[in-house]
Amino acid sequence: MDRTVHHGLEGVLAGESAICEVDHEIGGLRYYGYEIEDLAEHCSFEEVAYLLLMGALPNPDELFEFKEALVASRPVSQKTIDFLCQVSPSVKRMDVLRTAVSMLGMDESDHEANGHAANLSKAIRLTAQMPALLAALLDLPLDENVRTDPSLSHAAYLLTALTGVRPEPFAVKVINVSLILYAEHEFNASTFAARVTASSLSDLHSAITSAIGTLKGPLHGGANEAVMEMLLKIEAHGDVKQYLEERLARRKRIMGFGHRVLRKGDPRSNIIKAYAKKLGEQTGDERWYKVSTALEALMQHEKGLYPNLDFYSASAYYLLGLPIPIYTPLFVCSRITGWAAHIIEQHDHNRLIRPRCAYTGPKARAFVSLEERA
Amino acid sequence: MDRTVHHGLEGVLAGESAICEVDHEIGGLRYYGYEIEDLAEHCSFEEVAYLLLMGALPNPDELFEFKEALVASRPVSQKTIDFLCQVSPSVKRMDVLRTAVSMLGMDESDHEANGHAANLSKAIRLTAQMPALLAALLDLPLDENVRTDPSLSHAAYLLTALTGVRPEPFAVKVINVSLILYAEHEFNASTFAARVTASSLSDLHSAITSAIGTLKGPLHGGANEAVMEMLLKIEAHGDVKQYLEERLARRKRIMGFGHRVLRKGDPRSNIIKAYAKKLGEQTGDERWYKVSTALEALMQHEKGLYPNLDFYSASAYYLLGLPIPIYTPLFVCSRITGWAAHIIEQHDHNRLIRPRCAYTGPKARAFVSLEERA
Repeated sequence: MDRTVHHGLEGVLAGESAICEVDHEIGGLRYYGYEIEDLAEHCSFEEVAYLLLMGALPNPDELFEFKEALVASRPVSQKTIDFLCQVSPSVKRMDVLRTAVSMLGMDESDHEANGHAANLSKAIRLTAQMPALLAALLDLPLDENVRTDPSLSHAAYLLTALTGVRPEPFAVKVINVSLILYAEHEFNASTFAARVTASSLSDLHSAITSAIGTLKGPLHGGANEAVMEMLLKIEAHGDVKQYLEERLARRKRIMGFGHRVLRKGDPRSNIIKAYAKKLGEQTGDERWYKVSTALEALMQHEKGLYPNLDFYSASAYYLLGLPIPIYTPLFVCSRITGWAAHIIEQHDHNRLIRPRCAYTGPKARAFVSLEERA
Repeated sequence: MDRTVHHGLEGVLAGESAICEVDHEIGGLRYYGYEIEDLAEHCSFEEVAYLLLMGALPNPDELFEFKEALVASRPVSQKTIDFLCQVSPSVKRMDVLRTAVSMLGMDESDHEANGHAANLSKAIRLTAQMPALLAALLDLPLDENVRTDPSLSHAAYLLTALTGVRPEPFAVKVINVSLILYAEHEFNASTFAARVTASSLSDLHSAITSAIGTLKGPLHGGANEAVMEMLLKIEAHGDVKQYLEERLARRKRIMGFGHRVLRKGDPRSNIIKAYAKKLGEQTGDERWYKVSTALEALMQHEKGLYPNLDFYSASAYYLLGLPIPIYTPLFVCSRITGWAAHIIEQHDHNRLIRPRCAYTGPKARAFVSLEERA
């Protein structure tokens, strides 16, 4: 047995997957072979969700059917909505969402079935349910006419649910792009947690619950909320350079920069950056873009780090009028498709994920009875 | 980068840990250096929980304080109990328990604190709350006098909560031993899921929720329930050998045998086997022990596989009058201490767990617009 200790499993190939490829040579990212730039520019989120779950882009008929299935799956049981609405607003929204998805798992009639078809139908249902769950997280009523409106794309439905008004086409485009960019990123921590859970042949809802709990952490999905809180502080502070130097002097982490895998920059950052810029121009509120680009230049100069997807996503969400505590749940709304694709892949080719550890504790020692212990 | 694909992370050292050592040479298992046989024979579960959480066995004063903290932490919020009691009995108990623990995570006032002391206090609280949660899973009322009785050890409190009567000392001893045997097993799938979740700096309740969802699967904790259901079928069938041959001919898994790590036998199995035998003698119901030993001999002969901890635990629980759907939640009641010890260790020396995958999907390909797709 190889005695190398793989801290954080860095660089370890923990299995095979056909879903997502990180191309270090060109700094690219592909879902099932398609460049993220093409998908973000030309596709609806529904097309990308279909791609991730089925392995191929849909033709018009397949897309029509898939959208119909999503619209039909939008309702969430009143019991779950009631639960969400009675939780104190002081509770972290990711804790509430994790509990809500766990609760929805209790209702699944086909719960014990881990077959491909059952998993697919659970995945579509949970993806479709997310906007209603997020609206309830914000304690916003969701109009029945909105929920049942098949003319609303998933992005438009989500934005309407979160703002209460029919959104501008450009706002829908930004959310659509954001949903596509966040949808999948191979064996990231939350996806890997989902695969570990699924590998005991536990069910899809259990695995998604694990993923949500993992995404919550500030070293993962929680970063997008932390970025916006930082930008607000910098704006109040007034001097980006001084703020940064103070943080770095105190060895504090700057959120939204660097990535375990994408060391030479995150191709998704440039895409969302362009939308953050346009949103600033359109709304006439260019403060966040200015602060963000200044911080980006400084971080590259001082630390050699590039912004990741979370960095410009934060100010884009802010300019869309979305409340900060919903940013990480928005990540869930998107990544749920990648998680589900990985859970299905895990169940289709299952092997229990059970590593070993390097033991560093005390050597074998004689037992000492309670009375004799000092 | 090493291009070896580690399916199921088999044999990969995914990190360091001081908690538990599997000794392949002598077929031994040690918690912090103490042999599992010594701990099971001489300790209360409270002593072992203390050992796992603190890294040393307690002296009498420390144990007294620890027990006091456990008794004081037994109450569960009425909201959570109400939730548990209103769930339909047809819902899988592990789904309900996963949701309940996620819900308790929403209440944690020190929720965002991942510091050592905060984690320890959450771990003690959740361990102490488990018996009340399990009683509610069975829709059994928990007498206030039982819950607050400091003379009841954790094992006695648990068994009283699950049966409604003050148990015999030998029954308490069996549960105490079972709690010790199930408490910890290094980087098993549920513990590893907990560590992955904790590694994003998410909180202890999120990590335990991931672990429960993982333990649920039939390749992990769900096995103890499956063993008892199998024993009931064999007893009804009448002929162990014929039953086994039919199963093996249809390439069906025999539950409770073999282990990814303990290939030459599970040292815990012999310990619980002795208690299962005595329980059979005491109750005069020796059917399960007879069927079990017959199956053990056949499996060793036909497949070269040894029973694991789940195998004789199942019939021991059955003879204690515990309902089958509570067997895996009982595993949670015990393993929660090991999970918590690992989460604390992960947070104390954190590194995000983020492996890579070997990409097996389509090569980079040109985008095709929706209209052009066949």
